[in-house]
Amino acid sequence: MSFNTFGKQFRFTTWGESHGPALGCVVDGCPPNINLKEQDIQVELDKRKPGQSKFTTQRKEDDKVQILSGVFEGKTTGTPISLIIYNQDMRSKDYGNIKDKFRPGHADFTYFKKYGIRDYRGGGRSSARETAARVAAGAIAKKVLENKLGKKFKVVGAVTQLGILGCDTSKWNDLIINKNPFFCPDKNMLKLWEKYLLDIRKSGSSCGAIIEVRARGIPVGLGAPIYSKLDMDIASAMMSINAVKGVNIGSGMNSAQLSGEQNSDEISQKGKKLKFDSNNAGGILGGISTGQEIVASFAVKPTSSILTTRKTIDKFGKNTTISVKGRHDPCVGIRAVPVGEAMMNCVLLDHYLMNKAQCS
Amino acid sequence: MSFNTFGKQFRFTTWGESHGPALGCVVDGCPPNINLKEQDIQVELDKRKPGQSKFTTQRKEDDKVQILSGVFEGKTTGTPISLIIYNQDMRSKDYGNIKDKFRPGHADFTYFKKYGIRDYRGGGRSSARETAARVAAGAIAKKVLENKLGKKFKVVGAVTQLGILGCDTSKWNDLIINKNPFFCPDKNMLKLWEKYLLDIRKSGSSCGAIIEVRARGIPVGLGAPIYSKLDMDIASAMMSINAVKGVNIGSGMNSAQLSGEQNSDEISQKGKKLKFDSNNAGGILGGISTGQEIVASFAVKPTSSILTTRKTIDKFGKNTTISVKGRHDPCVGIRAVPVGEAMMNCVLLDHYLMNKAQCS
Amino acid sequence: MSFNTFGKQFRFTTWGESHGPALGCVVDGCPPNINLKEQDIQVELDKRKPGQSKFTTQRKEDDKVQILSGVFEGKTTGTPISLIIYNQDMRSKDYGNIKDKFRPGHADFTYFKKYGIRDYRGGGRSSARETAARVAAGAIAKKVLENKLGKKFKVVGAVTQLGILGCDTSKWNDLIINKNPFFCPDKNMLKLWEKYLLDIRKSGSSCGAIIEVRARGIPVGLGAPIYSKLDMDIASAMMSINAVKGVNIGSGMNSAQLSGEQNSDEISQKGKKLKFDSNNAGGILGGISTGQEIVASFAVKPTSSILTTRKTIDKFGKNTTISVKGRHDPCVGIRAVPVGEAMMNCVLLDHYLMNKAQCS
Amino acid sequence: MSFNTFGKQFRFTTWGESHGPALGCVVDGCPPNINLKEQDIQVELDKRKPGQSKFTTQRKEDDKVQILSGVFEGKTTGTPISLIIYNQDMRSKDYGNIKDKFRPGHADFTYFKKYGIRDYRGGGRSSARETAARVAAGAIAKKVLENKLGKKFKVVGAVTQLGILGCDTSKWNDLIINKNPFFCPDKNMLKLWEKYLLDIRKSGSSCGAIIEVRARGIPVGLGAPIYSKLDMDIASAMMSINAVKGVNIGSGMNSAQLSGEQNSDEISQKGKKLKFDSNNAGGILGGISTGQEIVASFAVKPTSSILTTRKTIDKFGKNTTISVKGRHDPCVGIRAVPVGEAMMNCVLLDHYLMNKAQCS
Repeated sequence: MSFNTFGKQFRFTTWGESHGPALGCVVDGCPPNINLKEQDIQVELDKRKPGQSKFTTQRKEDDKVQILSGVFEGKTTGTPISLIIYNQDMRSKDYGNIKDKFRPGHADFTYFKKYGIRDYRGGGRSSARETAARVAAGAIAKKVLENKLGKKFKVVGAVTQLGILGCDTSKWNDLIINKNPFFCPDKNMLKLWEKYLLDIRKSGSSCGAIIEVRARGIPVGLGAPIYSKLDMDIASAMMSINAVKGVNIGSGMNSAQLSGEQNSDEISQKGKKLKFDSNNAGGILGGISTGQEIVASFAVKPTSSILTTRKTIDKFGKNTTISVKGRHDPCVGIRAVPVGEAMMNCVLLDHYLMNKAQCS
Repeated sequence: MSFNTFGKQFRFTTWGESHGPALGCVVDGCPPNINLKEQDIQVELDKRKPGQSKFTTQRKEDDKVQILSGVFEGKTTGTPISLIIYNQDMRSKDYGNIKDKFRPGHADFTYFKKYGIRDYRGGGRSSARETAARVAAGAIAKKVLENKLGKKFKVVGAVTQLGILGCDTSKWNDLIINKNPFFCPDKNMLKLWEKYLLDIRKSGSSCGAIIEVRARGIPVGLGAPIYSKLDMDIASAMMSINAVKGVNIGSGMNSAQLSGEQNSDEISQKGKKLKFDSNNAGGILGGISTGQEIVASFAVKPTSSILTTRKTIDKFGKNTTISVKGRHDPCVGIRAVPVGEAMMNCVLLDHYLMNKAQCS
Repeated sequence: MSFNTFGKQFRFTTWGESHGPALGCVVDGCPPNINLKEQDIQVELDKRKPGQSKFTTQRKEDDKVQILSGVFEGKTTGTPISLIIYNQDMRSKDYGNIKDKFRPGHADFTYFKKYGIRDYRGGGRSSARETAARVAAGAIAKKVLENKLGKKFKVVGAVTQLGILGCDTSKWNDLIINKNPFFCPDKNMLKLWEKYLLDIRKSGSSCGAIIEVRARGIPVGLGAPIYSKLDMDIASAMMSINAVKGVNIGSGMNSAQLSGEQNSDEISQKGKKLKFDSNNAGGILGGISTGQEIVASFAVKPTSSILTTRKTIDKFGKNTTISVKGRHDPCVGIRAVPVGEAMMNCVLLDHYLMNKAQCS
Repeated sequence: MSFNTFGKQFRFTTWGESHGPALGCVVDGCPPNINLKEQDIQVELDKRKPGQSKFTTQRKEDDKVQILSGVFEGKTTGTPISLIIYNQDMRSKDYGNIKDKFRPGHADFTYFKKYGIRDYRGGGRSSARETAARVAAGAIAKKVLENKLGKKFKVVGAVTQLGILGCDTSKWNDLIINKNPFFCPDKNMLKLWEKYLLDIRKSGSSCGAIIEVRARGIPVGLGAPIYSKLDMDIASAMMSINAVKGVNIGSGMNSAQLSGEQNSDEISQKGKKLKFDSNNAGGILGGISTGQEIVASFAVKPTSSILTTRKTIDKFGKNTTISVKGRHDPCVGIRAVPVGEAMMNCVLLDHYLMNKAQCS
């Protein structure tokens, strides 16, 4: 069972509700003797932090993390690392609007039907606020992987499609991703995307997004067939993120339209160096990493809370309507970028460690 | 750890190589007192069996299943059910062609690099022959769900895209799916698909496919947030199938292009009956089933073994080429339909049983 | 993997070091709609709290617990319950004595050899202070079981042997157990035990103990053969407690000396009521509860930290000696009583919930 | 969940009933490139095989094992190893005596109450015949450990108490254990034990036994605190064996009666060699191996099926009696020796592999 725990060897368990006193996670299975300080985690949390541009939610949260255990004199000890983030912006506003109503596209209806009770404040446990805990866990995974794999290792994510607007992924530039409010990797799209999203925001509507995450410097051999395949665990990781509805590895859904000649990546050797002529596989064959760049992408559906009035029912089974008042978040997909990176780091470390047990 | 085991409460462990003496699985966590006979499993295996049309592999296998434990006087007893299928068509043909070479698009390279050894005969453990064991496990899950959920329950899969040719899923007709060699749900496409695939077969090429699996009669409340979400486990299940590169739930990757107004499914009540106006969510919100039809689809890449000569290397690091001789399988995606159904049945039963523990 | 997590369906993950800022646990899989307040947990923690008599450690800790998530308006919601206890008495005393030395009988040596690093302050992660988190988790399990099983349900533990002094378990009296500083169930032994332990304390020595835990009102049918047997999980739970070296179920080790006639408990029916003539089985047959009282006992070794000088080595491999200065704890086994009760509650709830999934 | 699966990294799943067509197991997580042939497994099975002396059950079974997968050209490949043993002596004898009656001391009552159905033939799934599958799995673990740890590694078990008769464990001699029908390690006891057991057999009664298992050549550092402690997993493993009621590590239950001075094992260094002056800890401190010999013992209750008539009830709730006719097994504990060895091998390999993932 793994209700609120992710991972097998490197595991994290998250807890906390949107408007509870705090949220956090316990990271278990982290190797000992890795340098770790709060700032290593904070820097990743700051990427995800709300309120950084007009294009994301305006909730005010510092997301200041504290390490409560598992680190001694600046190094991990192999014991569980407990992380806590106290909530700040949880003013007791009027929840009358959503206390008894089920917001369409949200988990309100299903949580209530499943459990017979729900913390309705800000979505409770189903709020994307939970992803702060994942980002914190991912920051630890990243530190370990950097220690084990060295400089070649890097995980980087970006938004490659914003609503109906794509970008040219062959223009992908790591350096500009964190320098624009969309995590866009193609500088040619920045103006267009800005205008597009401003229009959506003004109209009170919302749009979806596709996030692509790339991992470099990954050794061949990670992945445990048949039912802990690397791609399977990446799909699972990404699909667990709030509002995600689809996951691709390499050519993904598009591979259905390719021919055998187009799709299978030819291999050749040049001196000591092995080379794949293409990467439709997204760096994974038979569930095991090939040593190529690992490429995964996932779709985030448009923000369900919009200004337009929507039909719904309340918990007593009465027909009613609902709409968001005031500010809203035009594209929840944007803030999913650091979350996707974090999940990728966690899956990769999990498999890196498992591989030691399987094959050493 | 779950290398060769799938599921949490309802679990199956598969074993066997393509050209070993046998393959099978152990199904654990099956509830007691369910009627089960070999024929219940055989009927599902027969859908997946090779050699049923000229569009799939010509390997000759009866895939005759035996129940070795867990069933007493025609009923399950709650103890593990061991299933075995002896291989037949594993003649000692000349494997010289692939013994030392890594077939592009296959797991040959990664298995060898990971384990330092591999059973090269027919792909060994990475062969899609393993899916026979899943189909057998899925047949048991189906029997249990039919017993627990009654007549409204049904899982049905179909090929909705064959290479570059789609079909009209609004024309989906359960009754024709098993009556054509493509598991196509739209009778208008049959002739076109036949001609298209014959051409591909003649040219020695291959194409991919998209398979859609629908589940009806599923109660609201299945799914265990945050890290055993129902959609997460479906994504994991489908991505574990050989050659799958992408998974969608409901609108899937396409949801990125929808607006908030288009995407979130409005809810209304008509008398005692709750109604969703659309099903972009694919029957799942917040990782929990809504009671709507569950809709998942996945892409299978084109068969990697084709008649065209391909560049590759051998296990000594030498450049070489490889090509398939004689008959080949133009679209491996077709036979993934019963496998997708089986995995859906297994995930649903797993969550049905888990929900008892969580909420009763 | 379950390094710091215990349980399958009802799971708790503990974290924290003896002298870190805090310790706690995340309880996952708790059913929804159970009344729960901090005081329910505090009352159990207070039983384990240090410094309550001269017979236990003099560390000063309030062990005040806070609920950080998973409870809404006084009821559990089915989401993870995060509990935190801030440490208080962790003054930066001089650890020079144990910083580099391995205390015999403690985990100092093995932690250092395994991890290459250890938080030596008060034993770090290997300190029995971790058991506070288990007691907190057990308090939640108890609340759920009381809700599900009603008034007949009760788990009660006691010390049945203190060093070389046993007691008459046929005189077991629940009412006196919490009214003496030894958790002794037989009032006739109180004076003798007091004198015995005072002498040990004065001499700077220590003694072991046997703790027996009884569970009443448990339905028949809990336990999942073959590898989640109820007795197996109880043995695992008790052996996980610090300093425990042996576990018995029912007649336990003594059953080796019984004859078949003496050992197997005869069964008879009186009207609607089934009766076992004895309970050598300790309420468990074939790994499944019989409906009788469940009886488990375990031995806690004597406190390893004593006033006598002991030979040991330091982390540089040099021979040295070590001894405890000032106050010490003459019998760590005493405070294991609430821990044993907590673990029993957790195992029973785990199996109660699993049984729903297996058999409903 | 792990109903019929044991282990975390090195895992085996057993299946089969006493009188079904076959029994077996699937071993998962076995490292690749280990030499393995059927004979390696057969030799261990032969130790456990019934009918080898007049002191054990007279059922005739060859227990001939076949490897169905996971081994290629004499070496493991890292894929699951499926083992099968076909049952032979399962003649359709008259089960009228036990079909509807619950044998005291057996799992008949609890299986029926839990599942509402049971395969009553020979105890069905609850028969000790299941242990053949464990012995097979243990044989594989042993091969891997021999490969990884070298010649110093050895696991050896013996009966150290037969009913009321103990033996002198300081006289333990590996060489005589397999040369007497009791697996007795102390040659001075052989005659006495023989006479004692012959008398019990003639009288139609039975006795229990204590089995001790020792593991040598185990490196320091195996064990994953807090909830995968090595001793916890050994306790769990041994308690899972049929009829086991108690488990000790090192001084075990007896440690309650020791003083701190007697119990904690002093440490000293002699040149490069570390030395413990005693081994009350049984080779484990804080759940982690110390590098000393690991010593575990467990008690097996007396055979419940005896010639004396016993009171019981039938499945309709009627009072009745039961007794065994003809030959019986005077001490089931004897054949538990190879089972205990097998479980020890499996636990040690599991932790050996896990340690790679935790600390490398």
